[in-house]
Amino acid sequence: MVDIIAIRRDLHRHPEVGFTEFRTASRVVEILKSLGYDVIYGKDALDGASRRGVPSEQKLEEAYQRALAHGANLQIVEQMRGGYTAVIGVLKGKEAGPTVAFRFDMDALPVPESTDDDHLPHAQGFRSTFEGNMHACAHDGHTAIGLGLAEKLADRNFAGTIKLIFQPAEEGVRGAYAIVQKGLLDDVDTLYGFHLGTNVPLGEVHGGSTGFLATTKMEAHFYGVSSHAGATPEKGRNALLGAATALLNIHAIPRFSTADTRVNVGVLEGGTAANIIAESAKLIVETRSESEEINQDLEQRVRTIIAHSAAMHELEHSIEVIGSAIPITNDSELAHLAIGEAKQVEGFTSFKETAANSIGSEDCSFMIKRVQQRGGKATYMIIGTDIPAPHHHPKFDIQEEVLPRAVELLDRIARRIAK
Amino acid sequence: MVDIIAIRRDLHRHPEVGFTEFRTASRVVEILKSLGYDVIYGKDALDGASRRGVPSEQKLEEAYQRALAHGANLQIVEQMRGGYTAVIGVLKGKEAGPTVAFRFDMDALPVPESTDDDHLPHAQGFRSTFEGNMHACAHDGHTAIGLGLAEKLADRNFAGTIKLIFQPAEEGVRGAYAIVQKGLLDDVDTLYGFHLGTNVPLGEVHGGSTGFLATTKMEAHFYGVSSHAGATPEKGRNALLGAATALLNIHAIPRFSTADTRVNVGVLEGGTAANIIAESAKLIVETRSESEEINQDLEQRVRTIIAHSAAMHELEHSIEVIGSAIPITNDSELAHLAIGEAKQVEGFTSFKETAANSIGSEDCSFMIKRVQQRGGKATYMIIGTDIPAPHHHPKFDIQEEVLPRAVELLDRIARRIAK
Amino acid sequence: MVDIIAIRRDLHRHPEVGFTEFRTASRVVEILKSLGYDVIYGKDALDGASRRGVPSEQKLEEAYQRALAHGANLQIVEQMRGGYTAVIGVLKGKEAGPTVAFRFDMDALPVPESTDDDHLPHAQGFRSTFEGNMHACAHDGHTAIGLGLAEKLADRNFAGTIKLIFQPAEEGVRGAYAIVQKGLLDDVDTLYGFHLGTNVPLGEVHGGSTGFLATTKMEAHFYGVSSHAGATPEKGRNALLGAATALLNIHAIPRFSTADTRVNVGVLEGGTAANIIAESAKLIVETRSESEEINQDLEQRVRTIIAHSAAMHELEHSIEVIGSAIPITNDSELAHLAIGEAKQVEGFTSFKETAANSIGSEDCSFMIKRVQQRGGKATYMIIGTDIPAPHHHPKFDIQEEVLPRAVELLDRIARRIAK
Amino acid sequence: MVDIIAIRRDLHRHPEVGFTEFRTASRVVEILKSLGYDVIYGKDALDGASRRGVPSEQKLEEAYQRALAHGANLQIVEQMRGGYTAVIGVLKGKEAGPTVAFRFDMDALPVPESTDDDHLPHAQGFRSTFEGNMHACAHDGHTAIGLGLAEKLADRNFAGTIKLIFQPAEEGVRGAYAIVQKGLLDDVDTLYGFHLGTNVPLGEVHGGSTGFLATTKMEAHFYGVSSHAGATPEKGRNALLGAATALLNIHAIPRFSTADTRVNVGVLEGGTAANIIAESAKLIVETRSESEEINQDLEQRVRTIIAHSAAMHELEHSIEVIGSAIPITNDSELAHLAIGEAKQVEGFTSFKETAANSIGSEDCSFMIKRVQQRGGKATYMIIGTDIPAPHHHPKFDIQEEVLPRAVELLDRIARRIAK
Repeated sequence: MVDIIAIRRDLHRHPEVGFTEFRTASRVVEILKSLGYDVIYGKDALDGASRRGVPSEQKLEEAYQRALAHGANLQIVEQMRGGYTAVIGVLKGKEAGPTVAFRFDMDALPVPESTDDDHLPHAQGFRSTFEGNMHACAHDGHTAIGLGLAEKLADRNFAGTIKLIFQPAEEGVRGAYAIVQKGLLDDVDTLYGFHLGTNVPLGEVHGGSTGFLATTKMEAHFYGVSSHAGATPEKGRNALLGAATALLNIHAIPRFSTADTRVNVGVLEGGTAANIIAESAKLIVETRSESEEINQDLEQRVRTIIAHSAAMHELEHSIEVIGSAIPITNDSELAHLAIGEAKQVEGFTSFKETAANSIGSEDCSFMIKRVQQRGGKATYMIIGTDIPAPHHHPKFDIQEEVLPRAVELLDRIARRIAK
Repeated sequence: MVDIIAIRRDLHRHPEVGFTEFRTASRVVEILKSLGYDVIYGKDALDGASRRGVPSEQKLEEAYQRALAHGANLQIVEQMRGGYTAVIGVLKGKEAGPTVAFRFDMDALPVPESTDDDHLPHAQGFRSTFEGNMHACAHDGHTAIGLGLAEKLADRNFAGTIKLIFQPAEEGVRGAYAIVQKGLLDDVDTLYGFHLGTNVPLGEVHGGSTGFLATTKMEAHFYGVSSHAGATPEKGRNALLGAATALLNIHAIPRFSTADTRVNVGVLEGGTAANIIAESAKLIVETRSESEEINQDLEQRVRTIIAHSAAMHELEHSIEVIGSAIPITNDSELAHLAIGEAKQVEGFTSFKETAANSIGSEDCSFMIKRVQQRGGKATYMIIGTDIPAPHHHPKFDIQEEVLPRAVELLDRIARRIAK
Repeated sequence: MVDIIAIRRDLHRHPEVGFTEFRTASRVVEILKSLGYDVIYGKDALDGASRRGVPSEQKLEEAYQRALAHGANLQIVEQMRGGYTAVIGVLKGKEAGPTVAFRFDMDALPVPESTDDDHLPHAQGFRSTFEGNMHACAHDGHTAIGLGLAEKLADRNFAGTIKLIFQPAEEGVRGAYAIVQKGLLDDVDTLYGFHLGTNVPLGEVHGGSTGFLATTKMEAHFYGVSSHAGATPEKGRNALLGAATALLNIHAIPRFSTADTRVNVGVLEGGTAANIIAESAKLIVETRSESEEINQDLEQRVRTIIAHSAAMHELEHSIEVIGSAIPITNDSELAHLAIGEAKQVEGFTSFKETAANSIGSEDCSFMIKRVQQRGGKATYMIIGTDIPAPHHHPKFDIQEEVLPRAVELLDRIARRIAK
Repeated sequence: MVDIIAIRRDLHRHPEVGFTEFRTASRVVEILKSLGYDVIYGKDALDGASRRGVPSEQKLEEAYQRALAHGANLQIVEQMRGGYTAVIGVLKGKEAGPTVAFRFDMDALPVPESTDDDHLPHAQGFRSTFEGNMHACAHDGHTAIGLGLAEKLADRNFAGTIKLIFQPAEEGVRGAYAIVQKGLLDDVDTLYGFHLGTNVPLGEVHGGSTGFLATTKMEAHFYGVSSHAGATPEKGRNALLGAATALLNIHAIPRFSTADTRVNVGVLEGGTAANIIAESAKLIVETRSESEEINQDLEQRVRTIIAHSAAMHELEHSIEVIGSAIPITNDSELAHLAIGEAKQVEGFTSFKETAANSIGSEDCSFMIKRVQQRGGKATYMIIGTDIPAPHHHPKFDIQEEVLPRAVELLDRIARRIAK
């Protein structure tokens, strides 16, 4: 029997950041298998080249060894080595019917967790033991809900196929796209994504959350030629001149009359010493827009500016997309159905079929779009919980009573559709 | 008989800027012909496409009409229409011998001449009548000397060929290259260029002046797309962003450890109104170096910066070289010979075989290089005159007694070589 | 009797740009006086120091002389000399009552008018005779309507005071503020502004037009030290480096999350020659926002950037506001009343009490705000006319049948309020 | 008895970077005391506030503890705690006479030493044991020479006072100024500084090395306000915009016509994440010139640019000088005397009284200037050694046979002057 509170607390004690969810995913695989699910994981569960913002080899390996040291199942986890940490559980019901998918994200954040006495996970002894990392965005709860749901549906008392998608690396919007590119959403008729919290109070449910922005995060490198700044400045090719020029011009990208936009160069790092012409420099840039098309335009403008800022100073350059998301269009009938079921769940008392929540960006958007492109339907829900501190804060926490209610809601939805 | 004082004053009253020396060149042709010279002019005297910084069609035509209105010989000048204002006079001596060339520049400056009573040309009634233009760099004197020399040598009492090169558009270093490219220096064995003044006092002669810098002057245009800055900023392609980016980065071109360099964006102009994204912008840039090769490197860096500053903002661009010069290496034996002759001329009392004068740049350098490349010899002399105000100043003037002495010096040099 | 078609055509033939409306204003004064109005004009009608973007002394004087040459009344116009071209006509009714004001703008644009045969003003012989200027924004019609209204109300058959405000220099949003600052709106209880056209078809009337942006237009000058770029670059203080730095950083002002914003540097001009460090440079900048407060923030950011871009290069600088406007909040009861009256006027067939028109900015906003601040009410209407070409286009024109209908509408409104 | 080869190898095995020379200085104190010298060290030997580029408290303390763990004398070294690592040994001769000083620098570099078999210190077992640090600029040899000289002069068989100055933190030109500011050069009549190597071969000695550049190294910080780049960009104050603007404009500082100059921004680092407006940024900048005065001008221009680049974006900023040097003027009579003595030393075979070596900058310059300002004389010598790899390279090494020869040379110089 699955104890979702215990699972959530175990995950909370072992927070793993994007693409290093080795221990987490290993446990998910074990539980799903024990419940009779067909489980897809490792290189079968995502397209490696479509992952974005993958950590360095060294960090991946350190996290892998840490997972092993903390109880990960070797036979399972070795297939995830190198950052292949997605898990999809598939279960066919007693009769034929539609394929209904739910998506749960598993990754933690590089945030050191609070040691204040009023921080409940600390007070109750399940604070992070992976120092410097923390489940500060409720994904521990999401994963626990997914496993609770898995247990409920294990009775196979439904008509159709259930697909439970446990995604790595939602933070930085990096992991969903690789699952989509592997084709794993192509057979889905109905998809529900959701988030706990997001400033919605305990007891409230939103059937379709709007206002997600398209975004692209890029890491650019400029490669020049170092030279002694006093002896032979003319022999250098100054990577910092290229990077600074790009930074100013990216911020000068024009506003759009047709949609809200954002651009930001959040990081610039380059050079080694006062007396050396800088050989290399790095930029981290993001663009956002309400419109996927305009975000693509912004991304292209950023690429053009970087390319020519580099070439202007005879620098080479590279640009890697390290994260991206698109807007979400919810199918109203799924939102309506969800709210109808939520009203049947004890503890839910306030309902909105649609609401704009300022969540920023979500890469579940790629899954939703794929399902819709192939004729299916999808929506993204919010399930409220009061939070003592904002998402991503060292004192973030959720109210655990939301977990069983969420399981019940998703179970009801699944059986309502797969009937 | 050629009255060089009268000629100089006539030219001073009718100053014509680069490539508009229609009246000046017309008079030179008339006098050279009257003295028995073969005269090359019009499209035979320079390569049109190699001219730099040619004025607009309208300005050329206005100057042409003005020249006709002020006595230019129609039959001669119509062959110069459109800015073909070089004149070369050729005269063979009684016997065979080397080809000896002298170079005289003819153009004036867009400087309004002083009307102060202590400004001699005004006081004596030969101030500029072409308002806004002025012979403020002694080229009127240079041309008069050339005609005085032409008369002396008309006796053909020498062995070889004399070539008197009257060049347009030295200001901005724009005209010499086009004469060289027409091949007119290819048969020259010995070339003397010279300048009056340059802070050398009356009575002093320098046989070889050093310190000329290689330089390139460029005019660049950025072509974008205008758009209303309030209504549709995203539809604009902002020429000013490109131009400002180029300006900053051109000024950031590194210093060279191997030679002194200069870069300057002297002019930036673009845009039409506060509420319009600027459709076009113009830069005027110059580079300089002691080294021709490094100046070429600087020019290339400027071109690269401009090209990519434009492309970064999806602008088209063009770059035109509007002037250029290279350094000068004087042949010491010509300098020595010149000083030997100068010592024979009454009125010359101080002598330097070689001296560094801060003149900046001179496009006679292209002629000197061509002669030397083909095995000939060349030097650039300074013939002193006190000046009441700096070169290019509204009160600039020369001491006319230097003119007959200069003629005598050049005549002696010619006969010493062509003997 | 006032023939508004004839007046409009006469004005169309004599288009005068902002603060040079000498002939126009002179005629307005004459007509208002002939109708019995008290007329305020010259320095009594606006605060000289509060005018923005006043033309140069020379241009003002040239326009003044031109006006005299084309029939302006010397005794009237000499009080406007130097750009004091506002006119306010005041008429008391037979009984006491509220003060009802209407605003009419009089200025033309620096646009050359079309000479195409299908351009009606040209075909019918009332094309601009002030070459290069044109009434391309219907202000000739506005002024004619104002005079037509003046004639109607001259019967004084109303209760209260009528105030007809003929404003100079609406283009560039430069003139209204100076009238407000003179206190001439302080006693107004009700104010109606309006515009013809703006893509609203003939027969349609909008009672309150929304969507006007706050804006500030600034002209900045950078003052440095020129120096020869080859000889002594270190002695220069480069105005173009300051201006280019300002330009890039102004365009990099962040987007605002709370309102739509715009920034643009529309003009940058500086420097004189390739080989001179630029002594001075000019920027023309505008900011816009839906919010007056945010526009002030933008203006302040622009000022800060300019000040420090200058100081960074040891330049002096100046910034002059050359135009500004604020958003408009219409009083719905006035809009409602206007539409009620419009429905009584033959020829008006389509009505909106409120509508968002993309007009940009309007300095009538300052008048509206002042009236509202002092407890009065105001609105800005649109009165439709089909137009063959966009506003500010060389082939712009209006349908003259709108003029008498507009007069009737304003007359009805006036009498409805002042009753 | 002092074994200078053994000392040099011991120091080579324990390389300590600037202001952390705890173990090195401790040994120097012990040896000098054992030889009978009065020894000044700790806070008596330098002015704490005049040190430049002092490492962080943490790094100082780690190095201090490491020194203790590797044999530093606790009683001595505790007075150096916090980076007070200068040592001055003073010895009076048998008779009165002039004060003759020699300067030896002691610090190593943050360079990982080679482990190649052909790298002699590795092959012979005295490679660095302080991993990541290395004596790659011969200062181990300099210090050994100083101690060898100390032993020789311990016979007190001279007339006058000997002052042996062991300086920390020459790399980055950070330590000499603090010794000067403590007044320790004020009584010196004659000062010799020197360097081994610098591309001068074994056997060659230069009496006075010229060509040192004035330089200033600065570290600047920009302090802004972070904000979410998507949610509230307008609330940020972007430190990277300030830093990038400063970088471009610093590189655009004009060339000087009167002396060679250099400017370089070698490091720019700022920001934390794609979606955060950067709160802080750091620049590391250097200026250089042949002229101390012009270098001060450059430093001032850099300060002005940084200050206003910060203020432009409402950022705070700080600037710290982390290193500086001035040019050196050698007294020719000291150079002459040195060469005279060198000719008496076996193994020295090639001599130049003066030579230009491209060493860059040296903060011994501050000591030399102070001695000269107070009427003394000084020179900076080069003592050649072949080197297998350039200075600062992981495979740099010296030929140890130069060490006893250098000791003999300095001993001869000392006794020649103090006689």
